[in-house]
Amino acid sequence: MKKVTMKDIAEKLGVSISTVSRALSNSPGVSEELKERVRKTAEEMGYFPNLLARSLKKSESKTVGLIVPDISNPFFVEFLEGVDKVFFSKEYKFIVGNTDEDLDREKTYLEWFISHGVDGIIAAPTAERSKSNERIFRKIVKMGIPLVLFDRFLESLEGRVDAICVDNELAIREALVYLKGMGHESVGIMLGKIGIYTMKKRKEAFLRGVEELGMKTKKSWILEDLFPENEAVERIENFLKSGDVPTALVISNQSLTRSFLRASKSVGITVGEDISTVSFDDAVENEFYSPPLTSIRQPAKEMGKMAATFLLSRIEGDRSRPSKVVLRTELIVRESVKKINPSSP
Amino acid sequence: MKKVTMKDIAEKLGVSISTVSRALSNSPGVSEELKERVRKTAEEMGYFPNLLARSLKKSESKTVGLIVPDISNPFFVEFLEGVDKVFFSKEYKFIVGNTDEDLDREKTYLEWFISHGVDGIIAAPTAERSKSNERIFRKIVKMGIPLVLFDRFLESLEGRVDAICVDNELAIREALVYLKGMGHESVGIMLGKIGIYTMKKRKEAFLRGVEELGMKTKKSWILEDLFPENEAVERIENFLKSGDVPTALVISNQSLTRSFLRASKSVGITVGEDISTVSFDDAVENEFYSPPLTSIRQPAKEMGKMAATFLLSRIEGDRSRPSKVVLRTELIVRESVKKINPSSP
Repeated sequence: MKKVTMKDIAEKLGVSISTVSRALSNSPGVSEELKERVRKTAEEMGYFPNLLARSLKKSESKTVGLIVPDISNPFFVEFLEGVDKVFFSKEYKFIVGNTDEDLDREKTYLEWFISHGVDGIIAAPTAERSKSNERIFRKIVKMGIPLVLFDRFLESLEGRVDAICVDNELAIREALVYLKGMGHESVGIMLGKIGIYTMKKRKEAFLRGVEELGMKTKKSWILEDLFPENEAVERIENFLKSGDVPTALVISNQSLTRSFLRASKSVGITVGEDISTVSFDDAVENEFYSPPLTSIRQPAKEMGKMAATFLLSRIEGDRSRPSKVVLRTELIVRESVKKINPSSP
Repeated sequence: MKKVTMKDIAEKLGVSISTVSRALSNSPGVSEELKERVRKTAEEMGYFPNLLARSLKKSESKTVGLIVPDISNPFFVEFLEGVDKVFFSKEYKFIVGNTDEDLDREKTYLEWFISHGVDGIIAAPTAERSKSNERIFRKIVKMGIPLVLFDRFLESLEGRVDAICVDNELAIREALVYLKGMGHESVGIMLGKIGIYTMKKRKEAFLRGVEELGMKTKKSWILEDLFPENEAVERIENFLKSGDVPTALVISNQSLTRSFLRASKSVGITVGEDISTVSFDDAVENEFYSPPLTSIRQPAKEMGKMAATFLLSRIEGDRSRPSKVVLRTELIVRESVKKINPSSP
């Protein structure tokens, strides 16, 4: 089969070779519409593998872009530590794109990563439902830039990129089973931005689990979109003061655990006594709180090492079928869940 | 005055212009010894400002290198958040060089930053006494690469680079005055690697303060080089079990606070009751520990913003006299210091 060149694409589209070249390297001076047309034609004509090969050949930047939603959340810092361990030994460096769960920031970082030719990208995308950012992620895959997703998944890239997540369903289920075993029948959940993959999954798992285990919840016990922090604290305070609260709460990430601790303190509620909690993420600090918090441990550092290893293998040319790794969490039982007698009917 | 060119330097040294060019851009193919000679001559002949101008003109990478000693320490994460705030708005990106307080890692990152042409560097150097790494920092300054130091200072660069530190002397003094006011006469200190600027300063301030305030300490109450974490925990456990401990301890960073909490828990010592503590760094978590920890708050985020602002201004051509900013810390009084009666003589 004849090797497809940029010249072939240029001829087919009736544009210059340099236009094709600029379009494929996503340089300025070519309209977005034309870039898209060039890329599509390149792919259809089978130019795609060569693009990848070319990017591999010239890949000397040894720099990787990281999309991290919130560096104030210890989960992501631990993940970074894992990434760092692998990258340092292989002499790779990384640029941190801290998105603050903001789609515009995410877009800015992704476009910068593309235009500056990073060797690969590791990302925890902010929202599943953002069509525009999903388009950029698809573009990255199309351009042959190695991409590994972690913590959060994009359904539209199913089977096309490596991904490392935890089993959110099982994690929430284990928490609920434990709560039920401790005598809790009524339970609520605190969630961050609901557009985020993990939050959506944890909410779904919670609703399903509550129903299947015959526990009780209600709309006002499901606090979602608790973001940013100061608003979260205020809403949790109001919730705790409302007089209508469940006996136990599942808290969906470490930032929310901190907001919850702040709120419960200001309202004068004793955790593990007045209300029981199970927290997603087992940050170092949870062990030392009063009471020590029963937590769901995600293997954050291991996830970071794995993501970095996957990415490096792709950068080095591995084109085997992408894998989606789903890791198990661990329930660390401490003292924030009170044993209670089941309420009589 | 005639503008000094590379040609002038080449003629003076009897080498080719391209050798001068490669030496000044630190490219391969020129011996270290010759590079040093070229740089020295360039500086002597007044070529230095032009070098800076040139690097400014071509500075399109908009990427900055960060030397961070330990991303598991919340102080540095908060600092990064501050840096990120400023850089994002100016469309700058940063590469995180997490050194783990390791001189070889620091060297690797610094050399990579130089050879990959970052626009500037923000660094908290690991050790003052490392001649080899100090040489690299001096080289960075000589090459006209903007450099801002934070948290830790290099005496040999006094007056040559911007630096942002806190007043460690005053911070420790305030802690000691407070402890004395609460009736504590005997006091110890826990320190990380003693080669680190902040650790050295805090130790000096501690010894001076103890003496001037007429308090009591002794060698076995000064635990230094508590690093890495698992060793630190073990040494603190042994210390707490020894039966010879002061009534109060100053803890010099957040990682040590965590190690101390782990050790005191395993030994069965109650903080704020059996032993009192004042902790350097007021991480979010300190407020929620039991007891809530009396802490020294460093304005980490503000330091990050300031460092980024200084660096950008240098990148944009500001050549005014470098400033050394020394910020005040704040003593946050909580419940980890017990009020005791002064022991009778």
